[in-house]
Parts: sequence; structure tokens; C-alpha cells
Amino acid sequence: MLLEHIDSPTDLKKLTLPDLPQLAEEIRHFLIQKLSATGGHLAPNLGVVELTIALHYLYNSPQDKFIFDVGHQAYVHKMLTGRQNRFDSLRQKDGLCGFVKRNESEHDVWEAGHSSTSLSAAIGMALARDHQGGTNKVVAIIGDGALTGGMALEALNHIGHEKRKLMVVLNDNEMSIAPNVGAIHNYLGKVRSEKIYRKAKDELDWLLRKVPAIGGKLARTADRVKDSLKYLIAPDGMLFEEFGLKYFGPVDGHDVNKLLETFKQADNVEGPVLVHVLTVKGKGYSPAEADSHKWHGITGSYKIESGQVVKPVGPPMYTEVFGNALIELADQDKRIIAVTPAMPGGSGLLKFAEKYPDRMIDVGIAEQHAATMSAALAMEGMKPVFAVYSTFLQRAYDQVVHDICRQNLNVIFAIDRAGFVGADGETHHGVYDIAFLRHVPNMVLMMPKDENELRNMLKTAVDYDGGPIAVRYPRIAGTGVGFDDEMKPIEIGSWETVREGDYAAVLAIGPMVQVAEEAAELLKRDGINIRVINARFVKPLDEKMLIAMSKEQIPMLIAEEGTIQGGLGSAILEFYAMQGINPASIRLAGVPDRFIEHATIKEQREETGLTPESIAKQLASLAVRKRQRAT
Amino acid sequence: MLLEHIDSPTDLKKLTLPDLPQLAEEIRHFLIQKLSATGGHLAPNLGVVELTIALHYLYNSPQDKFIFDVGHQAYVHKMLTGRQNRFDSLRQKDGLCGFVKRNESEHDVWEAGHSSTSLSAAIGMALARDHQGGTNKVVAIIGDGALTGGMALEALNHIGHEKRKLMVVLNDNEMSIAPNVGAIHNYLGKVRSEKIYRKAKDELDWLLRKVPAIGGKLARTADRVKDSLKYLIAPDGMLFEEFGLKYFGPVDGHDVNKLLETFKQADNVEGPVLVHVLTVKGKGYSPAEADSHKWHGITGSYKIESGQVVKPVGPPMYTEVFGNALIELADQDKRIIAVTPAMPGGSGLLKFAEKYPDRMIDVGIAEQHAATMSAALAMEGMKPVFAVYSTFLQRAYDQVVHDICRQNLNVIFAIDRAGFVGADGETHHGVYDIAFLRHVPNMVLMMPKDENELRNMLKTAVDYDGGPIAVRYPRIAGTGVGFDDEMKPIEIGSWETVREGDYAAVLAIGPMVQVAEEAAELLKRDGINIRVINARFVKPLDEKMLIAMSKEQIPMLIAEEGTIQGGLGSAILEFYAMQGINPASIRLAGVPDRFIEHATIKEQREETGLTPESIAKQLASLAVRKRQRAT
Repeated sequence: MLLEHIDSPTDLKKLTLPDLPQLAEEIRHFLIQKLSATGGHLAPNLGVVELTIALHYLYNSPQDKFIFDVGHQAYVHKMLTGRQNRFDSLRQKDGLCGFVKRNESEHDVWEAGHSSTSLSAAIGMALARDHQGGTNKVVAIIGDGALTGGMALEALNHIGHEKRKLMVVLNDNEMSIAPNVGAIHNYLGKVRSEKIYRKAKDELDWLLRKVPAIGGKLARTADRVKDSLKYLIAPDGMLFEEFGLKYFGPVDGHDVNKLLETFKQADNVEGPVLVHVLTVKGKGYSPAEADSHKWHGITGSYKIESGQVVKPVGPPMYTEVFGNALIELADQDKRIIAVTPAMPGGSGLLKFAEKYPDRMIDVGIAEQHAATMSAALAMEGMKPVFAVYSTFLQRAYDQVVHDICRQNLNVIFAIDRAGFVGADGETHHGVYDIAFLRHVPNMVLMMPKDENELRNMLKTAVDYDGGPIAVRYPRIAGTGVGFDDEMKPIEIGSWETVREGDYAAVLAIGPMVQVAEEAAELLKRDGINIRVINARFVKPLDEKMLIAMSKEQIPMLIAEEGTIQGGLGSAILEFYAMQGINPASIRLAGVPDRFIEHATIKEQREETGLTPESIAKQLASLAVRKRQRAT
Repeated sequence: MLLEHIDSPTDLKKLTLPDLPQLAEEIRHFLIQKLSATGGHLAPNLGVVELTIALHYLYNSPQDKFIFDVGHQAYVHKMLTGRQNRFDSLRQKDGLCGFVKRNESEHDVWEAGHSSTSLSAAIGMALARDHQGGTNKVVAIIGDGALTGGMALEALNHIGHEKRKLMVVLNDNEMSIAPNVGAIHNYLGKVRSEKIYRKAKDELDWLLRKVPAIGGKLARTADRVKDSLKYLIAPDGMLFEEFGLKYFGPVDGHDVNKLLETFKQADNVEGPVLVHVLTVKGKGYSPAEADSHKWHGITGSYKIESGQVVKPVGPPMYTEVFGNALIELADQDKRIIAVTPAMPGGSGLLKFAEKYPDRMIDVGIAEQHAATMSAALAMEGMKPVFAVYSTFLQRAYDQVVHDICRQNLNVIFAIDRAGFVGADGETHHGVYDIAFLRHVPNMVLMMPKDENELRNMLKTAVDYDGGPIAVRYPRIAGTGVGFDDEMKPIEIGSWETVREGDYAAVLAIGPMVQVAEEAAELLKRDGINIRVINARFVKPLDEKMLIAMSKEQIPMLIAEEGTIQGGLGSAILEFYAMQGINPASIRLAGVPDRFIEHATIKEQREETGLTPESIAKQLASLAVRKRQRAT
């Protein structure tokens, strides 16, 4: 076993070249074994084993900077930098993070979780180095999917302009999370096949061989033509050469010797270079090679032999309920068209895409474009449903404000993974969307208390013609409630009292409604009757109910899985202040003003006081005041 | 005079081809005359006179859709669609909007103000058309600067993939607002010169002429080589052909006949096309041709003969104070480096760029990249100052959250044009930044009450090493206050009482401090003493002062030129609720939950109740309660 002796890149460098393929095998075996218990991003990491070995073998981390785009493909990097023994805790509370994490190791120099940031980071680090007179190398490792993200293209444009020494390793596995779309993807396909270039080159060579006798000027001209061709036809990589990066490749990403050779060549160039590496996602584990989509990220455990993933039993996930409901709605309304930024699977739209391929637009990793294109679809009378994770909608904030809400267009937002996301941790939580959507004029924002209400909210959204409307839902299973016979629209801005009580009220949204009910149940034992309100519209608020409650002077606790700053609680406080009403005590339960690390969703709720016990405790102290008020 | 008979595109179509150049001349004369009184985007519109005439002459608006990127170059379009007689009211309250505006005309089909949205709009409209079986044309008109925006590149990638019929008109004037940067810019320059292509083509032709005798196979091969070359060397436009758009041009954008000819050719293509049009910004008005940067947008009036712009006299603009202070700080601190997304002039950085060209990075229109690159600069020990308009920072929200604040990096944000912006109107107001920055962990957010405090806040930011820190300032002149001898850092989170009083307190930020002082002065006549607090840190709050005020039970009015939803007022309400403190009455003055149209800043404040009179009125009603409290 070589792997057990590798605690650092220095150990790696002691190996001979012929050792490296064996090390790669051992690493694959390790990952397949370890992840079968913990889950994680198996396929992306199996694809970059040789690539990561080659980089650490050649360069000197952490002086030389490795920037992993997205950062979920850094497991091998973690193994080679002293963290093998922590893989049993992968993605668990206080355990190894599933992404690059600076507080884990000096070798982790740039964190990410969202895609397409690595090229901006690379040119920034290169500029800082040159400004300070440094000599370190900067290497960004980016997938072909992430390359279509607008900010990566902005950075590419700037890198070509700046001409600083840096290396972009294009990890081309022909797909991002879902099969890739777009012209750049097609272009890469063309480069991979090399056919057109080879044809032109062969024909020109043949032509030139036919005229050997013509000397002097022609020979020189022929050379110059060849040079021009080299520049213009570009030995592959033309697009990147147009952007000003010297192109190398494509090179087999599973041949560690060839990788080393190519990196060394590329390293001799003074300006920016791009090394095009062809890899296979899931390489070395046949179930993952066969379905790299499914194996991109595995939640929970799997059986190594069969590749069978252990699925939790129980009610369906909100995501799945959304996907099925959208099909039913689309059956009845031809205006509905689904838009996804490279997440058809994660957003529960695979069945929809099968039934309505022409009404499903996957734009690749391009949230900004997806949002504004949805605005245009709505402008022309369609009902676009922009299905997006809360955390990735952050990328389209300006488009939401400037293009959709300002023009007041009927775009439906299906915001998945709202609230805590568990093991993906701080880069992926959907805890900001209330705060960044609530202050935008014309927006309607809802969250269902259960999966049946999700269906009714989707119906509400489709029926609504007053402008943009969003429904956010969590990354968890539903409550197991039954479905209404038919989806029924809900009155815009109407809340629902789900439990009576007059000592204090909890105004909760989404899964917090159930948590609040459990808290109320705890307090009932002490004779304290708590009202529970499903405050399902974050915007507009149920103003009638709020006014009635202020007259009653009932103390309130607002509970939400979103930032306290700018959240639902904040909305309610503002409402009273604007109305000139002084309500009874209002207290807030939500996500505090700091980033919450990876753990289970349950642990993240415990950490932030969003459990029945914690809510009950806060309510009990408010309810004391209620008794004082009564005297 | 032809122009006076043109009230609609139908009228335009009655003209003969030879009439069109004369019409163009008349339009230029009209614009130069009218804008000399009102100000406005003169140079961009002078550049697109023939282009706009040709589009309206050939196509049938509004069935055919014209999408103007940014939308400030639509004056000619407005003139040709029945709005000539409204130009005296350009950019004024209830007058003609400076951008495309749907409530003005059925010919205005897509609004913008931010750049790079037109391609997403175009493919969205084309998809909707095809879904509904329509036959209308879709034409996006986009500048070369806007093309470097990430979302335009995302859209280009998707357009090439979808292969729908649509036309992109690339209005290439070799600069965006500032001289353009980046590889795409260089690429366009290469296409414009055509030199390399011509060289290769000429040499190949010469080569082939030298071997005429070789018949049969060679001739066929030569043809095939030529075809390959045609495809691969690409008769210009290769980059766009790589993206899957058929390329036409470059064509002289001031030759209306050539434009019509090219558009007609391009219109015969079934899929997406790009027509590359070369224009001169400011064409036909020599001062504007000579300095198209200055003449991009003119605030106020100018003298036609001399080209002299009438400048307001008085204290310096905040923008200018920022630029000068940054030079002083950079003199002393080599870590400081300025970053701008194509706004060196608008951000007051021209003098800085002259003195420190190597410490000034203009990335072009690329806010996302600018933000994340700044994160990387900070990661490596630099002090990046990201100078950006509040409204454009919206484009980098995710980068602020995910890359800068989550990694807690020392990026300084200089947020210009915070608050109302006046004539540019609803697309450009900086009224959301408090709401979208305040809920992000680790962020420090300040706003100065005058230009001296701006200097001290910049010093504060440079001295601060705790993470991201932002200072926002308005698009107005300072108060005329003198400067401290030296810039002095301000204690983070410390507010300042600028006027004593105990009937009620106004907590104000930025220019609202002065407004509050004037309101207090008004009330003093009635014997009502109002305390005025400069709440200069929006985050963190001055918690000590807030706790003291709650003990005092003094009523408070919060005044800010930002959205009430999620604003400073909301922050104060949240603080008390989280602390379990019940304060006295709190009332909010700020920007209400709707979009505010173009007018003067004064009028916009009047419309939203942010005047001394309106603030005084609100305070008077609160102060009554104070007397009740005293009894």
C-alpha cells in the first residue's frame, strides 16, 4: 500500500513515476469504500484522481495555489494533504467538509460551493502575486459545465487581456451535473473529435507535398501559410486562443504521465495557458461510469457491489411533489414552460422533461440568463416556471429586481432547497432568499407548511396574473399528509390559524409550522395554550390578521428557517411600525447572523434554536408576559 | 423637413431610399438641439441614427420586436415612433423616460437600464414565438461593451444551442462607457482590421495560383481546403460562428443603404445571425466625436457651438471626494488597488488611474468577476477597493455572499449612487443595497453624513482588517463642509448625536442627517426638541446607544434613502426584538415598496416623504406621545 504513507505532498513527491498509477488505484478504492458509508460527490472525484496526483506531484502546494472550481472535486486533494484519516466524518458535523475549506488545511486556499468562481480567483491571485513580486504558480481547475457560467466567461475575457502567468485546467468530462448544453459545449465536442482540423491540416499537407519543386518564395510562403493556419485554424483550442490563452491538449486525464508532460510544457509559457484534460466522471467504478448523473452526489450510503443506493423510506421529498404537480398543471395549461439552470434532476424535472421535452429549457449553468429569459417568455404570454435552488438564485438577484419585478412579469419561481440543506453546508443553505426577495416591489413570496400546500401554491402561482410569484420549499421529505383531490388556489396574502391559543402566538412558515405545533404541544402540558399560525405568505402579509392580533395584544414569536435579518419577522415588525401600531412583544427565531457549517439539518436546527424545545422555551417566557397583560 | 412628417414607422416607410440620409441629418440636428437643454445620452444616440432608421424602415414594429440593450440608445427609436414632441421633457418628472419604457409606447417592448440583458430577452421572445407558432422577427441591438457582461455570454451560448431565428445587431463603437477591455474587445479589433485573415487568404490564393497545372484531384482538394478555410479561418466573425451564429459584416453603421442590404441578407438565414455594425459614438457632433466618454451621458445643459457643458457650482460631488481621498490613501498604503467594472470616470477614478495605472483594474462590464477577483486580491494580502454603483452591485450579490463575506475577506466596497439617482430613474436607483447587504454575515456597512465623513470612512475601511467593509454615498454634491487635517478612522459601530433633544429622536443616515436637522429646526419653533442621530453604521448598529434610548423610552423615527423593507429601520426593530427589549414607538421613513420613476432627486424625495417638512410632520405626531409619556 502506497497510500498509507502519503500524509503530505512531500510524501507524494518521494514516489517514482511508475508508482503513480498504483496510487491512483488505491485512492479510487479508498473513495469507493469510504463514500459507501458517508455519501458524497463520488463521480466527480473519481474523475480527477490522476489529475490531482499530477498537480501535487509537479507543483508545490500551498505556495503554488490550486483553485478548485465548485470545490466538490477536492477529495483527492484532501487525501494527499493529510486528511485521509478524517474521511469517516465526511460531510458530518465537525467532520471533513465536502468542499474546499480553509480552516481544514493550509493547502485549501480558495473556498467555493457555487460554480464558475475559479477563474476570477486565479487572475486575482496572479495579479496580487505580480504586484508583490511573487513567483508562485496559480492553477484553476474548472469543469466544462462551470465554464458556461457568465462569471467564468467574464474572467476568461479578462485573463486574456491581462496576460498574467496562470494555468487553467479544463476538466472536460462532457457534462456538468446534468448533460451540458450550449455552443461552448458543442465547440468542445468539436475540439475533442479534432476531425475538422485534421481534415484541413491533412489536405494542406497533401497540397504542399504536391509542390515540392517550387522553391524559394513559395516555400517561405507555405511556411507562413502554415503559421497562419496554426494561429487561425488553431490546433484545437481556437476559442481559447481567441480569448488569449495558449491552448494545450486535449490530453487523456487518466494517464498521469501524459498529464505531467503536458503540465510541464504548459508551465514553460509566460502568459495564461489552458490545458484541456479529458476525464471520465466516475472513472473506475462501473455503476458511476454508467450513470454519472446519479452518482454526481450521493446522499447517504450505497452498496459497493451492486451500486444500490440506500434510499430513505417515508413521505416523498418536496422536490418530487413539485415535479409531479408541475406535470399535472402543464397538462391543463399550455403556457407553462419549465426553465432550469443545469439542474433538471435536482429540481425534480426529469419526468416533466420526458413528457414535455419542448417545454423544458435547460440553459446550463447560467442563472442570470435563465431569469431574464424567463422574463421575456412571460412578456410574450408564456408562464415560465424558473426552477432553481435558493442558493443559486442568489446569482440572479439583479435579474429578479431589474428585469422581472421592475417589469412586473408573470414569472413563477420554484425555489427548492430553501432553509438548511444539511451536509452541503454553508455554501448551499437557502437562508437568504426571503431577505433578498422580500424588499423587491411586486414580488409575491410563499412557503407551504406541507407537500399538499405546495401543490396548492403551485396552482395559486399558475392562476395568478399579477406579476412575479415565488414558492420556496425545503430540501426534506414532506410530512406525509394526503393530497386534496384537486389543486386549489390559495387567496394571496392569507394566513391560516392551525392551532388555537391565547397566551402567545407563533407565526411560522414551512417546516417551522410543524416545529411550532410540537412546541405548542409541549407547553400545553403546563396549561399554556399557544396559537400557531401558518404565515404562508411572506409577502404580502396577512395585514388583517396582524391588525387583529395587535388589538388583542397577544405576544408573538416569529419562526423561520431563514436569516433573522430581513426575514419574515422583520417584515412583521416593519408593518406595525409603518402602520403606527404598537403591538405586544414580538420575538424572533431564525438563522442568526453567521454562516452555519455542514451537519445534518436536524443538527443545524439545534445549533440555531429552531427545535420544538427551543421554540417552547422562548414561548414560555413570552407567555409569562401574557399573564401579566391579563392582570 | 422630413422629420416633422414622421409620426410612426408607417410614415418612415413612405420615404424613398435617397431620403434617408437627409432624415438622419435632421434627426442628428434635432437631438443636438434638444439635448443641449435637457441633457441625456447624446453620444450613444448619435451613433445609432442610421441603424435605427434602417431597422424601422425594414421591419414592422411592434409586431417585430426591437430589444435595445441598456436602453439609453433608444432616442431615435422614440423619435420614429411618435414621441418627437415630448423631447423637451426628456428625463424629467412625468416626461419622456431616458430609457425604453413600455408605458410610453407599444413600440417599447423590453425595458432595461442595466447592460447585457438583450440577448436573454431575444432568445426568450424567440422561444415564446416558436412555441405559439408566431412569425414575428426578434432583433437585439447590443453594444460591444455590453457583450462582455457575463449574462450576455451565457445567452450567446444558449442562442447558439437553440438555433432559433433571431438577429443580434452588434453595435460596435469600440468602447462601452469607458474604453473597452478584454479579449473579446481585442478580438473585435482583429475582425475590424481583417488583416490576419486577409494575409492568410492572400497567401493561400497566391499559393494556389502557383499550381494551376495540377488538375483533377488537386483542384478538388484545393477547393476543399478553401472551404475548410472559409469555415475555420472564418471570414471574420469566427468567434460568433463558433458560438453558432451566422456572421455578417462588419458593415458601416452610418451607411443606411449598406445597413439595409446587410439586414436583408441576414434576414434570409433561418437560424440566429449576428450583424456586426461599426458606428462612431457621437457621430455628427464634433465635440462628442472627440470625447465620446464625456458625452456618453450629459447631466444638465450644454452650449452647442462650443460643446461646453454647464457645470453646477458648489461643493464637490461625493464621487470626486472619494477619488481624491483614495489617491491620498494609496500614497501611504501599497496594498490598495482599485477595481472598476467599466466605470473609471463615473466612479471618480480617472485621476487615480493616471497616478497609479498599475493599481487600477478595469475589468469591463463584469461586476460578478470584479467582485470575486477582489476577493482573491484580498486573500493574497492586497486591499482591493471595489468601486461600483449601488445599482450595479446588484449583479454581484452572490459573489458578495459566497466569495467575499463567507470567506470573510478584506474587500472594501465603495458604493456610489446610493439612494435616489434622479433623471436615470427606476433602473438606476441605489435603494436596495442596504437591504441586500445587511443580512449577509461579516459585512460592515457605513454611510457618511457629509464628504468629510466619507474621507474618514475610507480611512476606517483601509485600517479595518476584520473582513468586508462597505461605504455607500449618494449621487449628489457634498454639504460643503471643510475637511479634517488628516483622515481619521471612526470606531466601528459608533453613532453620533448631532443635535440634542428629548421629545423624539431621528436616526438618520447619509443626506437624511441634514434633512433631519432641518426637520428638527422646523419643530424647534413649536418648542419641540428633537434629537438627531447620525446612525452612520447600518451594520453593526450602535447597540449601546440603542439600549440607552430604549431605557429612556424616547420615540424614534428612522430616516433613510433606501427601501423600508429590510432597511436600517428594520435592523433597529430586529435588534430590540432579538434583545427582548420593548422600545418606545418606532416609525419608519424610507423608500416605499414600489419603483420610483425618473424626476429630480428633490422630486423623488418629495414623492416618498423624505423632505424636512414630511419628516417634521411625522416627528410631531411621535413627539405628542412623548409628552404623554412624560406625564
